[in-house]
Amino acid sequence: VAALFVTRDLAQFLVATRNDAIPAGIRHEGQRALLNWLGCAIGGCRDETVERARTALDPFSGPRCATLIGRGERVDVPSAALLNALASNILDFDDTHMPTVIHPSVPVAAAVFALAEHQPVPGTDLLRSFILGVETECRIGDAVSPGHYAAGWHITATCGVLGAAAAAGVLLGLNAQQMRWALGIAATQASGITAMMGSMSKSYNMAHAAHGGLMAAFLARENFTSSEQALEAPRGFAHVLGKEPQLERITDNLGKNWALSANAYKPFPCGIVLHAVIDGCQQLRAAHHLQADDIGRVDLRLHPLALELAGKQAPQTGLEGKLSAHHTAAVALKLGRAGVAEFTDICVRDKAVIALRNRVVTQADAALSEMEAHIAITLKNGQVMSVHVPHAIGTLERPMSDADLEAKFADLARDTLAPDRVHNLIALAWSLDTLPDASTLIAATLPATRA
Amino acid sequence: VAALFVTRDLAQFLVATRNDAIPAGIRHEGQRALLNWLGCAIGGCRDETVERARTALDPFSGPRCATLIGRGERVDVPSAALLNALASNILDFDDTHMPTVIHPSVPVAAAVFALAEHQPVPGTDLLRSFILGVETECRIGDAVSPGHYAAGWHITATCGVLGAAAAAGVLLGLNAQQMRWALGIAATQASGITAMMGSMSKSYNMAHAAHGGLMAAFLARENFTSSEQALEAPRGFAHVLGKEPQLERITDNLGKNWALSANAYKPFPCGIVLHAVIDGCQQLRAAHHLQADDIGRVDLRLHPLALELAGKQAPQTGLEGKLSAHHTAAVALKLGRAGVAEFTDICVRDKAVIALRNRVVTQADAALSEMEAHIAITLKNGQVMSVHVPHAIGTLERPMSDADLEAKFADLARDTLAPDRVHNLIALAWSLDTLPDASTLIAATLPATRA
Repeated sequence: VAALFVTRDLAQFLVATRNDAIPAGIRHEGQRALLNWLGCAIGGCRDETVERARTALDPFSGPRCATLIGRGERVDVPSAALLNALASNILDFDDTHMPTVIHPSVPVAAAVFALAEHQPVPGTDLLRSFILGVETECRIGDAVSPGHYAAGWHITATCGVLGAAAAAGVLLGLNAQQMRWALGIAATQASGITAMMGSMSKSYNMAHAAHGGLMAAFLARENFTSSEQALEAPRGFAHVLGKEPQLERITDNLGKNWALSANAYKPFPCGIVLHAVIDGCQQLRAAHHLQADDIGRVDLRLHPLALELAGKQAPQTGLEGKLSAHHTAAVALKLGRAGVAEFTDICVRDKAVIALRNRVVTQADAALSEMEAHIAITLKNGQVMSVHVPHAIGTLERPMSDADLEAKFADLARDTLAPDRVHNLIALAWSLDTLPDASTLIAATLPATRA
Repeated sequence: VAALFVTRDLAQFLVATRNDAIPAGIRHEGQRALLNWLGCAIGGCRDETVERARTALDPFSGPRCATLIGRGERVDVPSAALLNALASNILDFDDTHMPTVIHPSVPVAAAVFALAEHQPVPGTDLLRSFILGVETECRIGDAVSPGHYAAGWHITATCGVLGAAAAAGVLLGLNAQQMRWALGIAATQASGITAMMGSMSKSYNMAHAAHGGLMAAFLARENFTSSEQALEAPRGFAHVLGKEPQLERITDNLGKNWALSANAYKPFPCGIVLHAVIDGCQQLRAAHHLQADDIGRVDLRLHPLALELAGKQAPQTGLEGKLSAHHTAAVALKLGRAGVAEFTDICVRDKAVIALRNRVVTQADAALSEMEAHIAITLKNGQVMSVHVPHAIGTLERPMSDADLEAKFADLARDTLAPDRVHNLIALAWSLDTLPDASTLIAATLPATRA
């Protein structure tokens, strides 16, 4: 019976939650997520994907009060949400809510930071809105998992639009009725199919979610109405886009259990289902001083979904390389690395990498978890060595530390910001909870002070 | 095997089709559809739904080169597509592609007319782009029918975004590769759930589709990539949003069979599944000189989907009245009419209408078509009269004539335009195929010449 009113109850929670109702550990996790997100946005901000989208959108930009992170051009608020979300997902380096495989920060952070340039907001309020947006998208995603993603829905986009609407609605000070409508307007915009993986539209799915969620909140503020039961209605979000949804997960223990406590950060800029492959290959390479030329065959055993998502045998571009178990195993074994440079077109087309990649054989094993890998290497001399990686580095079981996240941020920002500005931005991010104006953080992503 | 490349083949058809490849009868049907659409947009342009959306969007408007039909304020091109689509659906008076129940003109016409104010285009080219956009959305809708709508997808929105993208892509002169991407970017934005019926977000679904399709075309023009097989891929549009799709319907007899030949126009501004109810009640009222007070009971037998969509027993607002078999039967019997005035909040809350509505009983009958109705009236004196309406007025079997459409347009425009401007606009619409600049038609929707 309670599940009949999850939209109402979630909306009520969102508008009623005060800053001090969020535990300090969750607030810190929110800051970790935002530091990671800013690094991803800076790292991706000059990608061709952003250039093309910016060229398409710019002629229609309204008042230019919001900033393209790491670049400095200004566009209107909804376009900034879209383009910054786009940039922050391109490197596939963003965070992951492990129970749902949602990348929670992208749509939510892009929406609230764009809004913070529209109307000044204290850092502590922006942090609350971000945490509540993440809570919204992850709980809704959880309610429709695992059937939703398995059916071909790009869950970060479909649920992200709801997270962005919730977060923007909190910052706009919507009342409970308006928040209910905002969730409804977002629910009916939920879109994004996984056929887009490997093309620019993969990141566009999330960008579109950030934009749509923000607009849902703006519309709801004007009392634009939607279904009152958009999540739970018979022809609502959960039943139309989900398979056997468990609606009670949207509200169970609201305000007690927090989604950010299950948030992980990627050490490698590629599909998370391949991290155990990289981790294991790096372990074997280091332990046995492997040389690529000596390797006769590489056997990977992975969950079927991991192979469906990321089993491209012959990737042609850097983007496709991020979804290739074969390529990631090859670079990890040959180079010992799987960073941004290893997912460029150049690296994917490197003859030596291709030669090793062609010796990689994959096998599906439904008994494994989606994050697990068995790796066996047969040398040309017949010697066999293997490793089982139940939990890759960066998972909840082996999390990145604050220092790890700072190092990752510095790596991502190196080409854009001078070292002193990198340090300044890291310090600002850790002090978000006390910043008088959250948009200070966005201004700090620019290579130099704006003229 | 052919179905493996429907996205490619459809894109190729869209960019290769010249004006003279479209039969004269279809071009005329396109003009009928656009005249009807313009009337609907004018009729809905002052609705509170448009006011609220405009208030929300206006602060972010870019260069104001596109017009709100019937009003005259200007906004940027994508916002005009959105707001004009919104206006044109509000009255539920738009056209219907009978095989799919798509309202084809709304998303496509709104997109191409907004574009025509951005870059001047001859009427004949706008007409071609419109016809091809309608072809696209209806064929894709047909491929996923009937499972798609039955599952809760608002088919005009989910397929409309593809139609809008195709039409805008034609006008922008995309090449075949870009058109393929435009369809892909549109496919991954496909959204809209029928839980929104009865709220402002019902029309927003279509508005969002017009906007998204237009942006997909602009993005594709910048070579923003998507899946190359967005419609047919295993995790593409048809398999994720459809149930047992018949992909070959997207390309079978392309350029030979035209969707517009199955397009119908509504004589009543409410859910089309209720038109047979109104028609039959009007027939019984006229034949038997019925007085509402004499009626003891009204029995309606309809297809189960018709009742699911439009079976609201106690509507509270004009919007809900459009989805109430009970209300429509009551006004048709009591007043002999079911026009715009009969779907206002005032009429829905009228005590005498409610009294009669409460005597209406519905029954589902899966043996009927979705457009069919059996109506039986029992007078208080025990007399029973009944009628069976297999095809309501306005269906393909009993189509509205050109003169009927002109009269409908004049009714819709009466409150906005002086009679001479109504006549002028009707004449312009019939001459679209020879207009040097299609946007002349939009300027003609304004109450007076712009200052």
